[in-house]
Amino acid sequence: MTNAWSQEPVRRLPDWLQAQALRRPLHPAIETANGVLNYEELLYAALSCAASLYDQGLYAGQRAAVLLKDSYAHTIVLHALIQLGAILVPLNWRLSAPELAYQVEDCDAQLLICDAQTMSLAQEVNQSYRFPAGVIEFAELQTKGGRALDVFKADIDLTAPHCIVYTSGTTGRPKGAVITYQNHWWSAMGSVLQLGLRLDERWLVPMPLFHVGGMGVLLRSLIYGTTVVAHNGFDVERVDKALAYEGITLVSLVPAMLARLLDKRSDPYPDTLRAVLLGGGPAPKPLLERALALGIPINQSYGLTESNTQVATLMADDALAKVGSSGKPLANVRLAIDSPDGPTSMPRVEGEILVQSPTVIAGYFNQPMATEHAFRDGWLHTGDIGVFDDDGFLYVLDRRTDLIVSGGENVYPAEVESALMRLAGVQDAGVVAQANATWGQVPVAFVVLKDGVELTDETLAQWRTRLRELLAHYKIPQAFYAVSSLPRNASGKLLRRELREWVKTRC
Amino acid sequence: MTNAWSQEPVRRLPDWLQAQALRRPLHPAIETANGVLNYEELLYAALSCAASLYDQGLYAGQRAAVLLKDSYAHTIVLHALIQLGAILVPLNWRLSAPELAYQVEDCDAQLLICDAQTMSLAQEVNQSYRFPAGVIEFAELQTKGGRALDVFKADIDLTAPHCIVYTSGTTGRPKGAVITYQNHWWSAMGSVLQLGLRLDERWLVPMPLFHVGGMGVLLRSLIYGTTVVAHNGFDVERVDKALAYEGITLVSLVPAMLARLLDKRSDPYPDTLRAVLLGGGPAPKPLLERALALGIPINQSYGLTESNTQVATLMADDALAKVGSSGKPLANVRLAIDSPDGPTSMPRVEGEILVQSPTVIAGYFNQPMATEHAFRDGWLHTGDIGVFDDDGFLYVLDRRTDLIVSGGENVYPAEVESALMRLAGVQDAGVVAQANATWGQVPVAFVVLKDGVELTDETLAQWRTRLRELLAHYKIPQAFYAVSSLPRNASGKLLRRELREWVKTRC
Repeated sequence: MTNAWSQEPVRRLPDWLQAQALRRPLHPAIETANGVLNYEELLYAALSCAASLYDQGLYAGQRAAVLLKDSYAHTIVLHALIQLGAILVPLNWRLSAPELAYQVEDCDAQLLICDAQTMSLAQEVNQSYRFPAGVIEFAELQTKGGRALDVFKADIDLTAPHCIVYTSGTTGRPKGAVITYQNHWWSAMGSVLQLGLRLDERWLVPMPLFHVGGMGVLLRSLIYGTTVVAHNGFDVERVDKALAYEGITLVSLVPAMLARLLDKRSDPYPDTLRAVLLGGGPAPKPLLERALALGIPINQSYGLTESNTQVATLMADDALAKVGSSGKPLANVRLAIDSPDGPTSMPRVEGEILVQSPTVIAGYFNQPMATEHAFRDGWLHTGDIGVFDDDGFLYVLDRRTDLIVSGGENVYPAEVESALMRLAGVQDAGVVAQANATWGQVPVAFVVLKDGVELTDETLAQWRTRLRELLAHYKIPQAFYAVSSLPRNASGKLLRRELREWVKTRC
Repeated sequence: MTNAWSQEPVRRLPDWLQAQALRRPLHPAIETANGVLNYEELLYAALSCAASLYDQGLYAGQRAAVLLKDSYAHTIVLHALIQLGAILVPLNWRLSAPELAYQVEDCDAQLLICDAQTMSLAQEVNQSYRFPAGVIEFAELQTKGGRALDVFKADIDLTAPHCIVYTSGTTGRPKGAVITYQNHWWSAMGSVLQLGLRLDERWLVPMPLFHVGGMGVLLRSLIYGTTVVAHNGFDVERVDKALAYEGITLVSLVPAMLARLLDKRSDPYPDTLRAVLLGGGPAPKPLLERALALGIPINQSYGLTESNTQVATLMADDALAKVGSSGKPLANVRLAIDSPDGPTSMPRVEGEILVQSPTVIAGYFNQPMATEHAFRDGWLHTGDIGVFDDDGFLYVLDRRTDLIVSGGENVYPAEVESALMRLAGVQDAGVVAQANATWGQVPVAFVVLKDGVELTDETLAQWRTRLRELLAHYKIPQAFYAVSSLPRNASGKLLRRELREWVKTRC
């Protein structure tokens, strides 16, 4: 400092919710089926909830698992954990109890917060992993009165973890993606620089809040001081009504949701709807064309959990000229294609998409080797295959070779195969995506049966029952095909590329 | 990283101009009297100019003094220096050659870039301080062809200094405020979160680009990828025409400029003009009322060089209810009032305004003691006196006790007094502000004459001639009053508070 020649990087900011409660106390912060909270009310609710969690034995730095279907509850708890300095572990309530137990044990969660709808699943998880501070229903927590404890934080430490989001990998073993506050800050700013910002923004989220896509909108709106409209899951009638009549300016959708909306819709939406952010997997060209024909401002985007949502977005202005592209990198993001000569931004080179961005996560919790592998050489290695065109627009040619994206949810074949191998009568199994008009993709399975076993309706029924105990519903193969052997290379590695050919030719 | 538990703060971003040239190559970046440059053209011009400066002997980390009246030239050079990694020292062309020589010597400037209008002043400065790489006219620099050297940077280091802006202090000795890239980034984001952002923003800057107020807009527009409309100085007809017919969305003004515009104007401006940022000193209440009556969306703001422009802004919606206030702190800014019990945000406590903000500068170049004093205890001590009302709105009661703000320019009495003491016949001198309808304030002087000297027209004419050699025009007292002695305390310190009373009662 003696020479004042340079500066430490910015690390701390005034707490975002406290700041918005001062700046815009009466501005609506969240709208859910349970009503509207303004920023002052949200702060009071979060402070009371945080004090209540503290009383339950949850302290700063500990992990709090959250299994909430109710958006109102999820939002209050998310803000309470920030006030407390505890780390959010948002759980996917579509997963099975064993899947969830693995995650909460991996991150050593201190307690689990559930609601009436998720209580029985929560209790089941608690059978396998005993939460030190127990399982608590949201309704039991105080959210009135604005009780603040002096252990609460006045600042945001940008470098600290905000949450751990579990994402399955190609190995099938879920990994906890550690997302920091600065990841959220830079995502929020990247989005502003791409889409602009209205002070009266109303951002509709009909997707689950446990994914980065939904959660990101909660954090962005907090950083902006604007309004989130959160639905508990996707109800096509309700979303259509909100877009048509409720002054929504931005909405995040996955292709399957857009498809269902368009099946309903023949009129344009009002001009207040200024961008539809389409993420969570590739959108079929005909779907985009139908939307554009209706004047819906589609912004196709590309991103992944490890980049804390989108790193590239195709602006609505370019949507017609560049159908099928995910657009250009957001501000402050550098994308490259991995080539034999190293990372390149040259056009027409196909290869793995690499990302440098201040939104790239800290790493995988307690998995230094997986972290080192995914983030080697200063780039996030996405596993997705892409190419730039001559104008610098990114086209994603193939999501991670193995990845199946079904209705916005990631399904990793290795994880499903590992469950299939536990079924009575299965000798070998291979899982691959099949195109589906509603969900984009669904998983299907090729199985080698043990001697004497046959693929009867009865066998299938037994398998499905067993699989429902092991896997989330959307991961269960929609079809099973018996084969005499699976294509494997000399070292025994399954050749999924061939399986994908089988789907096209045999199914 | 083994635990992936937290993250290093973000330090590097892809170069902003290179990124915009990729994202929005054909979008207008700057509009000046010399025409329009889009982002691709601006990048090419900046690269060529940077290569040309490198050929002249200017390297990364060195200081480049810039004395340019021409906005087009100033803009290209500003961007060229970023590409080169050299540090901009923007000089105020209203200053005298000795004032400028002090600044360039203090920062050890490598060269001086001037234009046709500032050439003779530049040569005069070069008499006192020999620039190692000389004085160069902008017209001699290459700005065509986009020549890039491999010494250019591909990244922005957020913690590195971008520029050194000289600001006089209460001691009269100018200090070089070191503004970093992250100061600009956070100013840009603070502004977005306060005003929102349109992707087709057109921000008019009729104020000089050598001040943080004007320069800040150049950097923000770069960060946003939007358009700056830069005038070479304030021409009331031209500004009025731009606001009325040229789709300006934002404009930065000082109160004196607004007063002159309102003298011309009886009709509202179009709705495209969404905010008038009023900075550079307090605005008289009648002026604000006239503007609001005409429906002009005034955003009164408070800031200083040391906070890299505004830290508080009064939104147009609150302008009527809170006339005279500077509004609430921007996002990520914490303001407090220094009280006997320490920094407080309680209402109705009057005291020095303290600032915490990621926009607060690195410090004063080569002045560790002044830096330590101004930034002690983790707060920027502004020297300004303020108070919060019950709703958290800031009122600036008194700019730094000594400071005179004349037409947006800061005038430090101590500096003017020190020049007055060099005049023949002056025994003692005290300088203080007098209210002025056009400029807000002007400096006036109380002088104690040496024995036998009288304040004749001839004496005054001689003084003015000599003062023009020593001081910028706007610093020269508009009136001189002869007195028998000045009010000083026991230790000889001038009591300016009493001088201010004299102005009210005697002048």
